[in-house]
Amino acid sequence: MSLEQLRKEVLEANLDLVTKNLVISTWGNVSGYDPETKLMVIKASGVPYVKMGIKDMVVVDMQGNVLEGNARPSTDTPTHIALYKAFADFGIHGIVHTHSQYATMWAQAGRALPCYGTTHGDYYYGAIPCTRELTAEEIKSDYEVNTGKVILEAMSSSDCLHMSAALVKHHGPFVWGKSPEEAVLHSQVLEYVAKMAYCNETLDPRLQPIPDVLEEKHYSRKFGPNAYYGQN
Amino acid sequence: MSLEQLRKEVLEANLDLVTKNLVISTWGNVSGYDPETKLMVIKASGVPYVKMGIKDMVVVDMQGNVLEGNARPSTDTPTHIALYKAFADFGIHGIVHTHSQYATMWAQAGRALPCYGTTHGDYYYGAIPCTRELTAEEIKSDYEVNTGKVILEAMSSSDCLHMSAALVKHHGPFVWGKSPEEAVLHSQVLEYVAKMAYCNETLDPRLQPIPDVLEEKHYSRKFGPNAYYGQN
Amino acid sequence: MSLEQLRKEVLEANLDLVTKNLVISTWGNVSGYDPETKLMVIKASGVPYVKMGIKDMVVVDMQGNVLEGNARPSTDTPTHIALYKAFADFGIHGIVHTHSQYATMWAQAGRALPCYGTTHGDYYYGAIPCTRELTAEEIKSDYEVNTGKVILEAMSSSDCLHMSAALVKHHGPFVWGKSPEEAVLHSQVLEYVAKMAYCNETLDPRLQPIPDVLEEKHYSRKFGPNAYYGQN
Amino acid sequence: MSLEQLRKEVLEANLDLVTKNLVISTWGNVSGYDPETKLMVIKASGVPYVKMGIKDMVVVDMQGNVLEGNARPSTDTPTHIALYKAFADFGIHGIVHTHSQYATMWAQAGRALPCYGTTHGDYYYGAIPCTRELTAEEIKSDYEVNTGKVILEAMSSSDCLHMSAALVKHHGPFVWGKSPEEAVLHSQVLEYVAKMAYCNETLDPRLQPIPDVLEEKHYSRKFGPNAYYGQN
Repeated sequence: MSLEQLRKEVLEANLDLVTKNLVISTWGNVSGYDPETKLMVIKASGVPYVKMGIKDMVVVDMQGNVLEGNARPSTDTPTHIALYKAFADFGIHGIVHTHSQYATMWAQAGRALPCYGTTHGDYYYGAIPCTRELTAEEIKSDYEVNTGKVILEAMSSSDCLHMSAALVKHHGPFVWGKSPEEAVLHSQVLEYVAKMAYCNETLDPRLQPIPDVLEEKHYSRKFGPNAYYGQN
Repeated sequence: MSLEQLRKEVLEANLDLVTKNLVISTWGNVSGYDPETKLMVIKASGVPYVKMGIKDMVVVDMQGNVLEGNARPSTDTPTHIALYKAFADFGIHGIVHTHSQYATMWAQAGRALPCYGTTHGDYYYGAIPCTRELTAEEIKSDYEVNTGKVILEAMSSSDCLHMSAALVKHHGPFVWGKSPEEAVLHSQVLEYVAKMAYCNETLDPRLQPIPDVLEEKHYSRKFGPNAYYGQN
Repeated sequence: MSLEQLRKEVLEANLDLVTKNLVISTWGNVSGYDPETKLMVIKASGVPYVKMGIKDMVVVDMQGNVLEGNARPSTDTPTHIALYKAFADFGIHGIVHTHSQYATMWAQAGRALPCYGTTHGDYYYGAIPCTRELTAEEIKSDYEVNTGKVILEAMSSSDCLHMSAALVKHHGPFVWGKSPEEAVLHSQVLEYVAKMAYCNETLDPRLQPIPDVLEEKHYSRKFGPNAYYGQN
Repeated sequence: MSLEQLRKEVLEANLDLVTKNLVISTWGNVSGYDPETKLMVIKASGVPYVKMGIKDMVVVDMQGNVLEGNARPSTDTPTHIALYKAFADFGIHGIVHTHSQYATMWAQAGRALPCYGTTHGDYYYGAIPCTRELTAEEIKSDYEVNTGKVILEAMSSSDCLHMSAALVKHHGPFVWGKSPEEAVLHSQVLEYVAKMAYCNETLDPRLQPIPDVLEEKHYSRKFGPNAYYGQN
């Protein structure tokens, strides 16, 4: 896929965040990664979605240098880079950051999101981790790099295919997938299950996660070696 | 009604799940049953609603064989079959499965949905049952068949006209009606009353279901032998 | 205003319930009253909003006889009649019944809706009453007439201009205004404040209603003899 | 900028309140301030958004005299004037009042809105203040002027750039920004974080605000002297 094609995909994925009610104003960002050139495309910083165009899709290398486009990339660019460095070799080529309401609320609560049902289990294997709090030092310098660091502390890189999201404490979710489009879907699913889990805990604070055997079943019928969900 | 007509109805009913905010992505499915041929039409597995067409409506017999269409039917097909085997003779010719948020939340809670008002009583006679948990064995083999089995354990077949939904524990609702269209309406009503019941219990955990005499009145003025709701 | 004009207004008001997310399917109904002829126009029973037209607006007299239109009027017609008999002389010429979610939830809770802020106080003077439970006898015969009766027990007729809604226990709201259009607005406001009051009580169960002096101020600046809200 | 231009901006900002689901009916109002002429433009009182036009944008001086337009300005005009007198010299040239649901709910609760995450911290430095209750005297005479007074008691004028909203107890939010458009954005953000904070407290009533160092970081990367969010 050409970089030009990737820029189109990343633009579409960014706009889809609005359609799916995951962002307002200039919030959030989607990036896409090209494994051949090891470059990524990411939304420019602070651009309102209503005015966004292909020109706002910035090409950045894995050192954070802007190669194409004369806009400043998202402030969260160093976090995206940190995640691609860890995840790209496992096939993760799309990353999304939003402040979607229920997922962000769990991040604000500093809570991993428990797996309370098969909707969650169809996409995420187990509880979606929440990072530790950053130290004052980590906040003051290289904040965005350190945001990536605490995500990677909360899970092992090799888990990235089975756990496509993490909640950054006090902040909000970072979500990934094999493509920008899939990362947006995972963001939508995260918001969906985050709302249900909120309702579940306010209805019954003692609710337990689903049994392992059920989680295994749902995840594997969709993504396991003998998956039978979807078309061939 | 011809099978071709049924495929159109089932397609429309599937698309209506999106309009009524009961599904996202590729989730959920509607089927319709033809009592003459004893065949059913069901959505193909894993097809996004935005791309869905008549070609994705698969004809399946009551042994699960695909007769028309070259797509793989919904993974939940065996559950639909189990329910038609029990309910079709009572006139149930449409089945819906969704992960709609509040209904699914009650299923995740493992709770039957109490009848807290006449909105519920207008459609469902009494609490909407929640199934028991499947055993590890039931999950590991013939999971979808066993999902049908625990629904049928939670209610008697002959109740299917007065109780058109069941919540599968940890999973979500299965809902039925005399037609695919009616089953979609019942799914929408279920979601509606599930949200109100959630609010009711979080406002007052000691709330009691409505009196039997009121439930009887509302259900019977709509569906009883002397019903006087609607046109003749 | 001619009856033909009233039928148009009542149709528009009924359709507006859908626009304002206060009803689904065939639920709810709006009526309008003509003080000259002492006739009312009300939605036909069980008609889906998506197919509703002027033909579904039924003219009924205060004895419940259908004068124009060959459709059966709403099952709630006797309740509307009971309220017009009590309120029409005070200028109430529009009545709405919905199962809007938060208002209905309060009715299901059997709770009067407390005035927790000026949004409520701008429209409703004091707590919105909730009726007592109907007796088994009142439910079994003349249910809809008795629904009107318990509303009128919960408030005095002469309060109808300052309190334009009542919650029928286990059931849902009846709402009124000087016209069908105003009754729909009052239904929308009721739903709005019912949601806020739900959030308020789940956030802080000990919250107290606003001070009388503030309620008096807000209501009177909008509707009092020296009102200064709106245009002359 | 000409007054004519300001009227257009204020009209657009008012209509945007509807688009952003912050008002219904005739509720709420936006004003804009012209620093050269020291005049403000504000929505006329009680005008439904569906019928609103440029004619409903009233020019008012800082003594409350109507200079252009023959409509009566918003009843909240004296509150807007009080705030411009305190804030205009700091560059605040747009003010919004709404009864948006979650922000109003916090005002009804009489609670300052705690900063539970970086979404809040990106826009508001610290907890969003809630005013004290007005006394009976303050309510009975010059109510709208006194509403401005209690807002200014709850914060110092010079804080207006870092704290662009206040909750008036029992009533609802007043929000401001450098322009009418920015004030509307701040109103939307307020509603967004107010909903998340509600969910946070109902999920975990003991949640603590975010650390100062994180609040400082997020606010300053967006608005501080070395801000690096957005384009140059």
